[in-house]
Amino acid sequence: MKMQQIVVRSLPEAELRPDHFEAQEVEAPSTGDGEVLLRTILMSIDAANRSWMQGATYREAVKAGDVMATYAISEVVESKSPRLSPGDIVGGEGVWAEYDVRAAHKLQKLPAVPELSNLISVYGIAGKTAFHGLVGVGQPMAGETILVSAAAGSVGGYVGQIGKALGCRVVGIAGGPEKCKWVVDELGFDACVDYREAGLGKAIRAACPDGVDIYFDNVGGAVLETALFAMNERGRVVCCGAISQYDSGAPSGPRNLPGLVVVKRLRMEGFIVMDFARDDAKATRALQHWVQSGQIKVFEDIVEGLENAPHALIGLLAGDNKGKRMVRVAADPGK
Amino acid sequence: MKMQQIVVRSLPEAELRPDHFEAQEVEAPSTGDGEVLLRTILMSIDAANRSWMQGATYREAVKAGDVMATYAISEVVESKSPRLSPGDIVGGEGVWAEYDVRAAHKLQKLPAVPELSNLISVYGIAGKTAFHGLVGVGQPMAGETILVSAAAGSVGGYVGQIGKALGCRVVGIAGGPEKCKWVVDELGFDACVDYREAGLGKAIRAACPDGVDIYFDNVGGAVLETALFAMNERGRVVCCGAISQYDSGAPSGPRNLPGLVVVKRLRMEGFIVMDFARDDAKATRALQHWVQSGQIKVFEDIVEGLENAPHALIGLLAGDNKGKRMVRVAADPGK
Repeated sequence: MKMQQIVVRSLPEAELRPDHFEAQEVEAPSTGDGEVLLRTILMSIDAANRSWMQGATYREAVKAGDVMATYAISEVVESKSPRLSPGDIVGGEGVWAEYDVRAAHKLQKLPAVPELSNLISVYGIAGKTAFHGLVGVGQPMAGETILVSAAAGSVGGYVGQIGKALGCRVVGIAGGPEKCKWVVDELGFDACVDYREAGLGKAIRAACPDGVDIYFDNVGGAVLETALFAMNERGRVVCCGAISQYDSGAPSGPRNLPGLVVVKRLRMEGFIVMDFARDDAKATRALQHWVQSGQIKVFEDIVEGLENAPHALIGLLAGDNKGKRMVRVAADPGK
Repeated sequence: MKMQQIVVRSLPEAELRPDHFEAQEVEAPSTGDGEVLLRTILMSIDAANRSWMQGATYREAVKAGDVMATYAISEVVESKSPRLSPGDIVGGEGVWAEYDVRAAHKLQKLPAVPELSNLISVYGIAGKTAFHGLVGVGQPMAGETILVSAAAGSVGGYVGQIGKALGCRVVGIAGGPEKCKWVVDELGFDACVDYREAGLGKAIRAACPDGVDIYFDNVGGAVLETALFAMNERGRVVCCGAISQYDSGAPSGPRNLPGLVVVKRLRMEGFIVMDFARDDAKATRALQHWVQSGQIKVFEDIVEGLENAPHALIGLLAGDNKGKRMVRVAADPGK
């Protein structure tokens, strides 16, 4: 059986381009003992995908010649394991390919919800990262002010909506007037400032008259530096990503670090969503509650077709998505 | 009654120099209701003194024309408050002057210990900053590795000795072979690397074969950047100071921030000693225990004479002290 896959032809040294990838037609892999053959349904497109190309992080690096790695939701089509049966829907590490073979014990069986995409967006990586980062690391309290960069992005949008549900003032940072308007009108943020305009520091101070208690940082770089100046004493900086730095060869650090951390007694803390796995059930319960109450709206940005995955990732790094981006490789089998 | 005082003539824009200060002979201040007249005995000399000249921090800025601010231990010579009597020994905010007038309720009555200087060193700002930063912020556990910059300094020396007492491997960073030898031979660190030598990163990795779990940062800048690369996942960076940056006009930030904080899920946290006032009694009890058991040795670097205070501070910023630096203005009255 032939299938399509997308390989990393060469590793980017700076900006990621389409020619760093190559589409190939190859033989579908065959299943060994304890393994299952999977048909890819949805692939999550995340800024983290780009960071995997920079070397080993919390996971092995993606190297030249590898089929590009991803988190995927798939259907089991053939099983040589008693754990899983054909027709089961599973989530786990995958690749940019129509079919994949994995050890059954490394996959998580997923509930057959009406919209599988929700298991990648609000109940998946995006919603859980927002919940664990804001609640577990940021520890917000009603009446505090939360500032969120990449506010129109998959994680940022949920951070703001969770913050509102918890009684905080929420201010976003996004690129361009159209996105900023969307963040306020559709996501319900109290305000959103445009980092492409001059005077970001002033705009943040105007939008946060009581200062910033929690800065949820998805971007690093100059925006982080500017946000630090607006922090209140004892503020928390939730370090979720450094998207501005992935595509640049020699990033420069915020000049006010560590000075402001000392003077304002800030806490800056990095995390990945797996660190809080023990609280996953709590996160899902809370997110379901807020979705049902209408306090959280789910926005998904689904790109159709495996062949469009490189552009979907490159566009994400440039900030052209609104809501959680993913690529649909095959239709939901339940539909 | 005439007295000597030292005024900030102008604020430094970069390196602090003797001509930023001016000695003056003035009339001693007179005491109002609720106030006491104090004879200064000892003045603490801290890198933080320099940061006060850069603007408001956790306290008001020191401005041109002000008598230089300090933490002081003093004897009450005249009292217009029922709280304090002549002969009492007190600690609190003071100035670089032979006499000072303060509101009695802002002063802390100190025990009449044999060596008042110990109330500035091991049982004072230095020892408490080391204890609260390492224990309260860093949360060390036996078997972990602690890296400490400015290891021969007042705080760093206690951080290392406390770390050893808690069962950790302790590695210092200091300037020059003589200081590094002193840190190992006298303070009992496991190793000490010289930041003035080339190859600091390699030297840190060689001295910390299991990586770094806690980096106690007294300096910021390039040393912080290098130390971050050696951190283990879930490591803690205790942000105590940024001495390398006080004297430089346009500090550059560590290039690996916030990238490494995300990838290694680090926690960087600033603090000042007053944040942990609720644990002061615990700190004193522990420090007394370790001094009595011989696990902590007390090193003090006492400069004689008010007129030498500017040089004492400038020298401290250049790293020429070993142990807690202070200036003696008058003899201990109990001696």
